[in-house]
Amino acid sequence: MKYLCLLLLLLAGPSWSQTEDKAQLKAIYDTSLSQGEAYSWLNYLSNQIGGRLSGSVQAEQAVEYTKKKLDSLGLDRVWLQPVMVPKWVRGAPAFAYIESKPGITSNVPICALGGSVATPLGGLKANIVEVRSFEELDRLGRSEIEGKIVFYNRPMEPANIRTFESYSGAVDQRSSGAAQAAKYGAVGVIVRSMNLRLDDFPHTGAMNYGETPLDKRIPAAAISTNGAELLSTTLKLDREIKFYFKQNCRQLQDVQSYNVIGEIKGSLYPDEIILVGGHLDSWDLGDGSHDDGAGCVQSMEVLRLLKKIGYKPKRTLRVVLFMNEENGLRGGKTYAEIAENKKENHVFALESDSGGFTPRGFSFDCSQADFNKVATWKPLFEPYLVHSFVKGSSGADIGPLKNDRIVLAGLRPDSQRYFEHHHSENDVFEHVNKRELELGAATMASLVYLFDKYGTSAGSAQEEN
Amino acid sequence: MKYLCLLLLLLAGPSWSQTEDKAQLKAIYDTSLSQGEAYSWLNYLSNQIGGRLSGSVQAEQAVEYTKKKLDSLGLDRVWLQPVMVPKWVRGAPAFAYIESKPGITSNVPICALGGSVATPLGGLKANIVEVRSFEELDRLGRSEIEGKIVFYNRPMEPANIRTFESYSGAVDQRSSGAAQAAKYGAVGVIVRSMNLRLDDFPHTGAMNYGETPLDKRIPAAAISTNGAELLSTTLKLDREIKFYFKQNCRQLQDVQSYNVIGEIKGSLYPDEIILVGGHLDSWDLGDGSHDDGAGCVQSMEVLRLLKKIGYKPKRTLRVVLFMNEENGLRGGKTYAEIAENKKENHVFALESDSGGFTPRGFSFDCSQADFNKVATWKPLFEPYLVHSFVKGSSGADIGPLKNDRIVLAGLRPDSQRYFEHHHSENDVFEHVNKRELELGAATMASLVYLFDKYGTSAGSAQEEN
Repeated sequence: MKYLCLLLLLLAGPSWSQTEDKAQLKAIYDTSLSQGEAYSWLNYLSNQIGGRLSGSVQAEQAVEYTKKKLDSLGLDRVWLQPVMVPKWVRGAPAFAYIESKPGITSNVPICALGGSVATPLGGLKANIVEVRSFEELDRLGRSEIEGKIVFYNRPMEPANIRTFESYSGAVDQRSSGAAQAAKYGAVGVIVRSMNLRLDDFPHTGAMNYGETPLDKRIPAAAISTNGAELLSTTLKLDREIKFYFKQNCRQLQDVQSYNVIGEIKGSLYPDEIILVGGHLDSWDLGDGSHDDGAGCVQSMEVLRLLKKIGYKPKRTLRVVLFMNEENGLRGGKTYAEIAENKKENHVFALESDSGGFTPRGFSFDCSQADFNKVATWKPLFEPYLVHSFVKGSSGADIGPLKNDRIVLAGLRPDSQRYFEHHHSENDVFEHVNKRELELGAATMASLVYLFDKYGTSAGSAQEEN
Repeated sequence: MKYLCLLLLLLAGPSWSQTEDKAQLKAIYDTSLSQGEAYSWLNYLSNQIGGRLSGSVQAEQAVEYTKKKLDSLGLDRVWLQPVMVPKWVRGAPAFAYIESKPGITSNVPICALGGSVATPLGGLKANIVEVRSFEELDRLGRSEIEGKIVFYNRPMEPANIRTFESYSGAVDQRSSGAAQAAKYGAVGVIVRSMNLRLDDFPHTGAMNYGETPLDKRIPAAAISTNGAELLSTTLKLDREIKFYFKQNCRQLQDVQSYNVIGEIKGSLYPDEIILVGGHLDSWDLGDGSHDDGAGCVQSMEVLRLLKKIGYKPKRTLRVVLFMNEENGLRGGKTYAEIAENKKENHVFALESDSGGFTPRGFSFDCSQADFNKVATWKPLFEPYLVHSFVKGSSGADIGPLKNDRIVLAGLRPDSQRYFEHHHSENDVFEHVNKRELELGAATMASLVYLFDKYGTSAGSAQEEN
């Protein structure tokens, strides 16, 4: 019975134009792997510019550089879209130690969390209380927490296969830990870095104080995973140890910045827009190669590859390099507002913001009808070892475009190594592999090609093939 | 029609015990990722012992260490299987330069190929002729080649998705280049390293002289890919440049070594043997972490994981760490001979020898009936992002076990980065990712579990489920 059904399925045939599409995907992949530009662009972005925190000189250099590169690709239009962005500065590197007895100290690597206030000028020293969850914090209450530093030490879950699930399961400690601890009179917060590996890199990332009044905001820093292990062990031996840390980060006035945009006008349906993008800003500790230099150069490469193979899009293909994903999402929000005001019709948007590793598939945030349509394209991707098409979240920057017609998607690369690099000094160019980056760009270009050719189920120019 | 068929397929149901097998695989993966031992074993093998060329002190230390570790696992039996292995030694590091004019030289990184003869004591200097294939060599003939060094410079093909195909397409230059060039009176051979990346590491690997008489054997070395580019460009500018190289490697007498073997006796079909293995020897330039320390510790981990989750195998599970895969395959051949003599019934053998990267699937060398059976297990692996089950070659060490009943298989990890490390100083522990290694071990253990539970189609104790 099963074999009969399989046979019938095979006879029913695929719903895409097998020969032509196969050939186009092959041309895209071949060109990316043999004549790719993404890696050399990333080299410049990472090694000549470096970390690109919103509002920094490097962020502005990245705007200039990527605009210049897009200008050189012979697109129909390239422009900068003004965005006001928050400017948070780290100041001098943070410093911390565990004081197990007066005068007996062990330095541990920390970094300020993005958006945190500074410690007092001379630093902050207090007893420390370790918790693994907000429930535990609530149980301890003010009597156990007041005047102390709260140490959040719930590790990322190692057993998840998709490491982003482990991140989601731990990141509340970073994002809301300070606001929660401040309610009970804590004087500071130290958070175990979002890293599955034991090493010495502290990982920064956004935090916010929520409703906490200005005068109740307490400084928050990340500690490396090895540092967290040391602190936890030391604390088990003696609850009376003290922790010292000092950081002088500050929030300044918003400053002017830009989304960088380029497009190829569609030949048949110019009003249907297909967007591909990543975010140009990064944290400041490394050079932001994986997060998200990779996504930016891959997105630029998508348009270059399709031009290079001589493909003339029916719909308008637009690359958008968003500013300020990391600590404000102003680029994504501004872009969506302007699109809304102009009544632009975005039919498909694809973001790459999960690192430049071997592509494993996509996640789709769309109607079931569109997901079913996409699923028929899967066999086209199998020769490239891209297998995983799932429903799920797409990307932070394109999220504000969501409505009930658009197809949103995120590239899903292999995620095993990502959190060793993410938001840390260890996110540097040498950890991006040229071929993996190029495979990602080709995988994105292939999906863009298919959506351009076949449209989405809700598109005004929906086609049957 | 298609949907009806899909529905019927679903109703027909899978041919494995879904709930129990799902739970067992989850236990295997969870244990590997949360309580894995493979990474710390590899750390010892790589950092405390190092490169393990057959016949070296390090190879013997690796035999002792892995035997001791297997002894500690509480298996039913652990033993050493004697194997005589060739002993080739590199001697002092090789040295080379391009002489573009007398006295004007540029050093380039080279290393002797495994099995090569030395240059004369003072080195060898000659004009150089670049070729990309044996056909080109044949066309040039003796008149163009005699007295010169032949430079094989055909790069690995970047457009292949599976990089092992690119390796297969280029490695004839390394393995037979010297024998081919010697026929036309060449005095030496320089081979572009088997590496898809441009960098400064020369990559060694086995070569053989075939029928070339002893007195006609010419020295052969690999040059780094950057070195190859420089040499090729320099040669284009001036065909009269000279190349100098010096190496003092030697072939010594065979020495005693061992395969390291451990097993858990099967409870129901002890005479049906399931083998899992890798090779314990490596080249001497790096520490052999990917090739094939990873495969060894993963294979050991397979037995440990199955014990740890409390699984009692029906068939005999045997881990074999083969000696001398790199330059002789004596371990694999000896193992198969002894198995043949003892009339042992190997029903399934799985090798891991493609690096410790994220597992993507397996290749199977077996009957269509067995391949069809294995294909029904694919859905069990999908939650672990293991998708690619193909027919193809398995592993060099288990190859000699081949007959028309056994199922041979090779773990297929992601291959994008492998040839940046393979056989070079760049194959070191820091390039193995703990989670990727552990996922590989769990993937192997899962397949071993399924074969143990369900048998092979030709097994004497074949079961239907």
